[in-house]
Amino acid sequence: MNEKDIKLLLEKIRTKKITVDQGIKKLRHLPFEDIGFARIDHHRVLRQGFPEVLFGQGKTPKQIFDIVKRMLPLKHNILITRTEEAVYRKIKNLDKRAKFYQDSGTIILLRDQIIRGNGTILIISAGTSDIPVAEEAMVTAQAMGNQVETLFDVGVAGIHRLLSSQDQLQAAKVIIVIAGMEGALPSVVGGLVSVPVIAVPTSIGYGASFGGIAALLGMLNSCASNVTVVNIDNGYGAGFVASLINRS
Amino acid sequence: MNEKDIKLLLEKIRTKKITVDQGIKKLRHLPFEDIGFARIDHHRVLRQGFPEVLFGQGKTPKQIFDIVKRMLPLKHNILITRTEEAVYRKIKNLDKRAKFYQDSGTIILLRDQIIRGNGTILIISAGTSDIPVAEEAMVTAQAMGNQVETLFDVGVAGIHRLLSSQDQLQAAKVIIVIAGMEGALPSVVGGLVSVPVIAVPTSIGYGASFGGIAALLGMLNSCASNVTVVNIDNGYGAGFVASLINRS
Amino acid sequence: MNEKDIKLLLEKIRTKKITVDQGIKKLRHLPFEDIGFARIDHHRVLRQGFPEVLFGQGKTPKQIFDIVKRMLPLKHNILITRTEEAVYRKIKNLDKRAKFYQDSGTIILLRDQIIRGNGTILIISAGTSDIPVAEEAMVTAQAMGNQVETLFDVGVAGIHRLLSSQDQLQAAKVIIVIAGMEGALPSVVGGLVSVPVIAVPTSIGYGASFGGIAALLGMLNSCASNVTVVNIDNGYGAGFVASLINRS
Amino acid sequence: MNEKDIKLLLEKIRTKKITVDQGIKKLRHLPFEDIGFARIDHHRVLRQGFPEVLFGQGKTPKQIFDIVKRMLPLKHNILITRTEEAVYRKIKNLDKRAKFYQDSGTIILLRDQIIRGNGTILIISAGTSDIPVAEEAMVTAQAMGNQVETLFDVGVAGIHRLLSSQDQLQAAKVIIVIAGMEGALPSVVGGLVSVPVIAVPTSIGYGASFGGIAALLGMLNSCASNVTVVNIDNGYGAGFVASLINRS
Amino acid sequence: MNEKDIKLLLEKIRTKKITVDQGIKKLRHLPFEDIGFARIDHHRVLRQGFPEVLFGQGKTPKQIFDIVKRMLPLKHNILITRTEEAVYRKIKNLDKRAKFYQDSGTIILLRDQIIRGNGTILIISAGTSDIPVAEEAMVTAQAMGNQVETLFDVGVAGIHRLLSSQDQLQAAKVIIVIAGMEGALPSVVGGLVSVPVIAVPTSIGYGASFGGIAALLGMLNSCASNVTVVNIDNGYGAGFVASLINRS
Amino acid sequence: MNEKDIKLLLEKIRTKKITVDQGIKKLRHLPFEDIGFARIDHHRVLRQGFPEVLFGQGKTPKQIFDIVKRMLPLKHNILITRTEEAVYRKIKNLDKRAKFYQDSGTIILLRDQIIRGNGTILIISAGTSDIPVAEEAMVTAQAMGNQVETLFDVGVAGIHRLLSSQDQLQAAKVIIVIAGMEGALPSVVGGLVSVPVIAVPTSIGYGASFGGIAALLGMLNSCASNVTVVNIDNGYGAGFVASLINRS
Amino acid sequence: MNEKDIKLLLEKIRTKKITVDQGIKKLRHLPFEDIGFARIDHHRVLRQGFPEVLFGQGKTPKQIFDIVKRMLPLKHNILITRTEEAVYRKIKNLDKRAKFYQDSGTIILLRDQIIRGNGTILIISAGTSDIPVAEEAMVTAQAMGNQVETLFDVGVAGIHRLLSSQDQLQAAKVIIVIAGMEGALPSVVGGLVSVPVIAVPTSIGYGASFGGIAALLGMLNSCASNVTVVNIDNGYGAGFVASLINRS
Amino acid sequence: MNEKDIKLLLEKIRTKKITVDQGIKKLRHLPFEDIGFARIDHHRVLRQGFPEVLFGQGKTPKQIFDIVKRMLPLKHNILITRTEEAVYRKIKNLDKRAKFYQDSGTIILLRDQIIRGNGTILIISAGTSDIPVAEEAMVTAQAMGNQVETLFDVGVAGIHRLLSSQDQLQAAKVIIVIAGMEGALPSVVGGLVSVPVIAVPTSIGYGASFGGIAALLGMLNSCASNVTVVNIDNGYGAGFVASLINRS
Repeated sequence: MNEKDIKLLLEKIRTKKITVDQGIKKLRHLPFEDIGFARIDHHRVLRQGFPEVLFGQGKTPKQIFDIVKRMLPLKHNILITRTEEAVYRKIKNLDKRAKFYQDSGTIILLRDQIIRGNGTILIISAGTSDIPVAEEAMVTAQAMGNQVETLFDVGVAGIHRLLSSQDQLQAAKVIIVIAGMEGALPSVVGGLVSVPVIAVPTSIGYGASFGGIAALLGMLNSCASNVTVVNIDNGYGAGFVASLINRS
Repeated sequence: MNEKDIKLLLEKIRTKKITVDQGIKKLRHLPFEDIGFARIDHHRVLRQGFPEVLFGQGKTPKQIFDIVKRMLPLKHNILITRTEEAVYRKIKNLDKRAKFYQDSGTIILLRDQIIRGNGTILIISAGTSDIPVAEEAMVTAQAMGNQVETLFDVGVAGIHRLLSSQDQLQAAKVIIVIAGMEGALPSVVGGLVSVPVIAVPTSIGYGASFGGIAALLGMLNSCASNVTVVNIDNGYGAGFVASLINRS
Repeated sequence: MNEKDIKLLLEKIRTKKITVDQGIKKLRHLPFEDIGFARIDHHRVLRQGFPEVLFGQGKTPKQIFDIVKRMLPLKHNILITRTEEAVYRKIKNLDKRAKFYQDSGTIILLRDQIIRGNGTILIISAGTSDIPVAEEAMVTAQAMGNQVETLFDVGVAGIHRLLSSQDQLQAAKVIIVIAGMEGALPSVVGGLVSVPVIAVPTSIGYGASFGGIAALLGMLNSCASNVTVVNIDNGYGAGFVASLINRS
Repeated sequence: MNEKDIKLLLEKIRTKKITVDQGIKKLRHLPFEDIGFARIDHHRVLRQGFPEVLFGQGKTPKQIFDIVKRMLPLKHNILITRTEEAVYRKIKNLDKRAKFYQDSGTIILLRDQIIRGNGTILIISAGTSDIPVAEEAMVTAQAMGNQVETLFDVGVAGIHRLLSSQDQLQAAKVIIVIAGMEGALPSVVGGLVSVPVIAVPTSIGYGASFGGIAALLGMLNSCASNVTVVNIDNGYGAGFVASLINRS
Repeated sequence: MNEKDIKLLLEKIRTKKITVDQGIKKLRHLPFEDIGFARIDHHRVLRQGFPEVLFGQGKTPKQIFDIVKRMLPLKHNILITRTEEAVYRKIKNLDKRAKFYQDSGTIILLRDQIIRGNGTILIISAGTSDIPVAEEAMVTAQAMGNQVETLFDVGVAGIHRLLSSQDQLQAAKVIIVIAGMEGALPSVVGGLVSVPVIAVPTSIGYGASFGGIAALLGMLNSCASNVTVVNIDNGYGAGFVASLINRS
Repeated sequence: MNEKDIKLLLEKIRTKKITVDQGIKKLRHLPFEDIGFARIDHHRVLRQGFPEVLFGQGKTPKQIFDIVKRMLPLKHNILITRTEEAVYRKIKNLDKRAKFYQDSGTIILLRDQIIRGNGTILIISAGTSDIPVAEEAMVTAQAMGNQVETLFDVGVAGIHRLLSSQDQLQAAKVIIVIAGMEGALPSVVGGLVSVPVIAVPTSIGYGASFGGIAALLGMLNSCASNVTVVNIDNGYGAGFVASLINRS
Repeated sequence: MNEKDIKLLLEKIRTKKITVDQGIKKLRHLPFEDIGFARIDHHRVLRQGFPEVLFGQGKTPKQIFDIVKRMLPLKHNILITRTEEAVYRKIKNLDKRAKFYQDSGTIILLRDQIIRGNGTILIISAGTSDIPVAEEAMVTAQAMGNQVETLFDVGVAGIHRLLSSQDQLQAAKVIIVIAGMEGALPSVVGGLVSVPVIAVPTSIGYGASFGGIAALLGMLNSCASNVTVVNIDNGYGAGFVASLINRS
Repeated sequence: MNEKDIKLLLEKIRTKKITVDQGIKKLRHLPFEDIGFARIDHHRVLRQGFPEVLFGQGKTPKQIFDIVKRMLPLKHNILITRTEEAVYRKIKNLDKRAKFYQDSGTIILLRDQIIRGNGTILIISAGTSDIPVAEEAMVTAQAMGNQVETLFDVGVAGIHRLLSSQDQLQAAKVIIVIAGMEGALPSVVGGLVSVPVIAVPTSIGYGASFGGIAALLGMLNSCASNVTVVNIDNGYGAGFVASLINRS
């Protein structure tokens, strides 16, 4: 099944000659679409209920534009991470609903606003400088159809700031905790709740923080049993897994 | 509220002078029980629906015996990790149902066999030497009331062994993947399913595996978005989080 | 000034032919006492108001016995760290007041019980396994003439255990915080008080704790400005500095 | 208590409707002030007798300006670290007394010049290139009301430069020692005095100095018992703790 | 034998006064040509059937131009790695056949197009961002007279993309596998084939990928026995060794 | 296809009811044999012309005995690495031809002595202490049907020892170079020959050799283009890949 | 003794009111000259027969100019390392003999050309890119009054290039060996000679060379007993120690 | 030249049929003696005026005995490092003059007591626990014909202990400085003298000393220009190089 076949199939869906379900059935057998410099995994989108997110870093605006154009017919939300304003302006021409988050460099095309998650995903960050990573997690979770709440600048050196938000903590179904430097916050949060906590170390810091390694080690060694960890600065990954958990 | 009070309260529950619910209500206000060398967090048990697991390493058989005795009245399952046969023989005297898992050094008192998880937790290991960690994860998940399946010795260098178990993969609601050396298995599994995958690096290996660091780094850098990671050899943590997700 | 001279001088002090102040004045000019395999720094003792602590590790019982015998005339407290019961039994013969702390392998000869510190030194540990290091810090602080209080097993994953001891925290003049694994406790404590906090990482742990490095990094990156750090497992150093601060 | 309430309260203090003491009493119950992108911890200021220092790095001049404006009514000294001249010019408009230290990028508003420390804080640096970190420590200590002296370029490879300043060493109540490369200076200083020594490794150096790690390790392994360590380049932290000790 | 002698000898070859074989015989005894800033190892070229590749990084366009000029008489292929377009334009003047590969910064002068390899070298890359390294390997292999095929963007998180190319895998005589992040691909490929697999870790990635270390460790720990590893980003080395194997 | 089927099939081969070729054809469709604690990959053996080598470490003599018994009917050579004399004595009972190599702990059952390699594999080691790893490589290469030569104790600090063996170097078709400490030997050897060189770092050494990391880094950074690297102490892997190259 | 006194003293030397020897005698008692931002250690110069070298990095042209001006009266050679052309132009105005070495950024004022070394210092570098470090070593050795020879681009992957210079190797009294990447050259050289070899790792390289760490480790683990090591890129240090050895 | 020839030649020397000089001349052309498990480099001995030292670690008493027996005819001193008492007892039977140093495990056969060094080698150690390494350096230097002095337990935290030995420091022609933990001593010593200082880090220590890495880094980053470094615990290497320098 080549590029032309896919276009044809998607055209049929658009013109309602076949139903979306029939189209999906056909596509399920299609492993991927080879467009030379990349292999778009529509298969994955259909299987996981979410498009393959475009990791923008290292791709030209033109390449991103081309890939997004191919994704448009499927009517799913589209998420582009680690990109820049120049790309946003191009994408805006494809779909006016495109929205750009400056701090994290994330673009979202929120075309499907159905809430699929059962509860609320709470995103907590330790410091102001962790906000870009928090934003990436937030947009990802929203793109996957979740209610999201945030709680920023509640680092452990002023624990009362966190404790005063106990209600929000107890109400969440999954929690993402983002922290740099000593990475202690996920343990404290983990001990206060009985839901899964996804910890994201951030590379922001100085001295012996070593680009997030100190925080990463702190989180891996967490004494709270409900904490798992994703890669340094990987807000997207945290938002993605939190969404999977919130749907289950 | 001292030790005596707790005993009294638990006695009342046993003699049905107050209901379990009334007892729990009272205990909720109790932060912890201080027995000198340790502070048993009954609070946590009640809040999270699971006893504070006894991390056996570095505790004497006598200490473990004492702590377990205090936990008996609550009728919950009791889990002791990283311990040894000598401890098991002592615990056996407290409750005949105690069961010992040799490879991982885990003791379980399965007194409450209600299945609380909604689906199946699948535990996959790359090599034979990863089995002890897999066992710790398995017993933990069982202690928390889950259906558990296992799939061992399916490392990526013989990918057909994994692919031939596609049905099991697709049926699971959460997957734990345990691997040492290069730690590549979680990425492959993660790409095949659309549920959360919890990766556990193991310290078994030689040469440049550095006690699990190579596997840990591989897992943190996984290209599959549904993978989160716990500490090296932390089978218990993986089983715990998987259970939380399976209940949600 | 050779060994004989020192003995003569100390004899004069004992027989009150010269006052202690006169003796100290003379000794101040003496750089050290060379006994072949070691150079005992009496100078330091006099200058800092505390004997040179015997780091027992790697010294034979005989060597320790010899050095202690030379220290006896000065009437100061004597502290031997990282040693074992065999040494204790030898020292006991020199002075019946010798006391042995098993967990940390510390011997103390508390011959001068004057309280020199102005306030209380509070020693906090995160887990049961950190107690040996806490004990070393405690004995050191006592040997230097301080009121010491302890608060054990109050790790951050059960933050209510720490918060319920707010009074003790607020009353201390210096705080030592001992923690392994993620090393988050000093930050939390540091944020709750306005006195200096000395953090001691411990080597106890497993997985990615790397013999205390994870805890060390966490502590160095603490967001609480009142935290300083000493070497991994260095309970003695923490007790020593805390004493200096408490005296000032 | 929202932003408006704080303003009102502070207004009352300014207009002398309530005394400063009454105001402080009220504020003590206020955990923090949430201004969206940050949570200013006035609580901490009041509790610790010092404003929450503004860590300037990664904040826009506008953000810093806004936060400082809110701090003005309290009449405390205000310290901004890791910032730049552009910020200084904005702050200068708020208060003519603002002073900028170029090497370290520190701004100080010294509005309260009472000396609160009991003795002198001595700041020693090993090389010329360590001066920026030394300056940050110095300004911090001055902002907290201390007498400060400095002794620069006295590295251990020319030990006579240090020894010729014995009087200054002996007169200090706390000493901060700043050094890059091999980080040996704190041990030498520590052995010469009987007061607490706070060691600050610096990231300046080349070859196998690894951005301060070599110096950090050297300091952690110091054989002088009166040495504690703060993070690489953390002049502020050293100045802060030294001030706490000097006040006690 | 000085520079002049070499020119004379090569002139004789060009003017057919001596045969190429006679010339080679003479040159075999010549260890190297010293041109001041470098020692060109013609010896190696003749011995290994391939010119000493010019590692362009850190050399000026003028220096590269000079070295290439000296290599022209030998009629072999010439390869310049890690260079830039400015150099290419200069070289183009020497020989119109020069071709520039932008992504990897490689220049090739393909003057001898005889296929010397017995089979096909297959070059596989995990992600789009690994293509520059793959290109360097590809051009190297072509310069050494091999049939080369490529298979890009077939990372392990979408294993079906790789499995759908089984025919290409089975047909190759040597395989080069290039991957960043977790470096799992060589193990999977290694398990599917029975030919040597040369793994190249790439420095592209973020978070805990540490400039290729994570991938490097993953590859060194590969459970597939037919995998060997070259340095991070060393596409040239992989292409070189693959060519040696393909010729044997 | 279960265990019984395999036995039946192998029985037919033994009793010559079907030819070996017919048997292989059938087995090709069999992915692996699941015997509970391990999955024996006969498939791989047949595909690669060599049995799955038994990595003995961590397996009980009984387990190894069981696995070997199942492998006997296939008439291939059997190799057991990282094992001990106790295992050897058990295996000896299965087949008298079993031979044990003490230094490396390798057992070989050389039942098929056909030479399949085209040339000679030369194994070079830097020091006497590298011999165990060299032995593992040697036995592996012999088990795979190769002519093997060795050249031991020719470290670079006495380069004349290596240079005096130029003939052996030039005659080899593949070379394995084993070295600990500085790992310089593969570069020197690589520069002297024009065949592939497989470098094996060894963990033997002291000081800053870090269990083979120094040697590993030295080898990865080799300036000789014909060098690839396998894991620390991985003599088996080197022997395996060398055999693949020698057969091609 | 303040700045004015030194000037006076030096003036007297210049005007021959006192002899140089008398001046040196006086200066011997002077520990250092404090000029605010630095403490010039004339003492060291006199004691070691060489001026304190100016490490130019991080000093302004003005600062360097000021320090050099103060050094002029002593008539010694003056060496400025890690500096740039702008500084050179300023220094040129002070003394026309100033010479600038571009590759290493070294300035030398060779005012005393007496040869003080007994033999020849040979400086060997592995690759073209190591030349800047070699140049720094060379200029340092010349400034200290030595005969210096060089041998560049003789890396171990083409060992014949080194072996063809045996005469130079055997004639040297001390040898400096500079190498990046695998750092194998010092071992080979060390094995060929019986004089001290000073190894300098360089930070130039890519992949797993880690800014010189791979080379540093290789050199520390050298099997040749006559090799010692200095810091990465520390050409100056190597030149300095080689000079001390050559004088003895 | 085989083993028999060497024996014959050495026999001739013993029986005075040829002079030692004639014998040496003949042996100079002999690259090495191959005795199977090792290649004894007599060549090196003759070239460097010192036998190839036997690194005892990993060799059986029998092997060491055999090698030593072959070395006896040459009448040089023989040194065996890193060995044990059992070996000593065997060697004692070969030559009654054999002497064993317990702390370092060194055996010396001092058969040639001529002093070849021009001055004194001073060996300084920081702590009591560094003495074994110091002893290895001392015995090596003695075996090579040097006057050796020692100065033990003079760590930098009590700098007066070192300063009181200024005369010894100034009198030495080369200095070896041995230190663990922070490794600061070589810098201090280096600044006090104008002769080469060879620094030896030791692996003894705890906490963040990392088996000597902290000391190694400290020494490499020494600000004293006359310091070079050898491998961790490499007392032999330091003694060897110091001897070469002392002879020159």
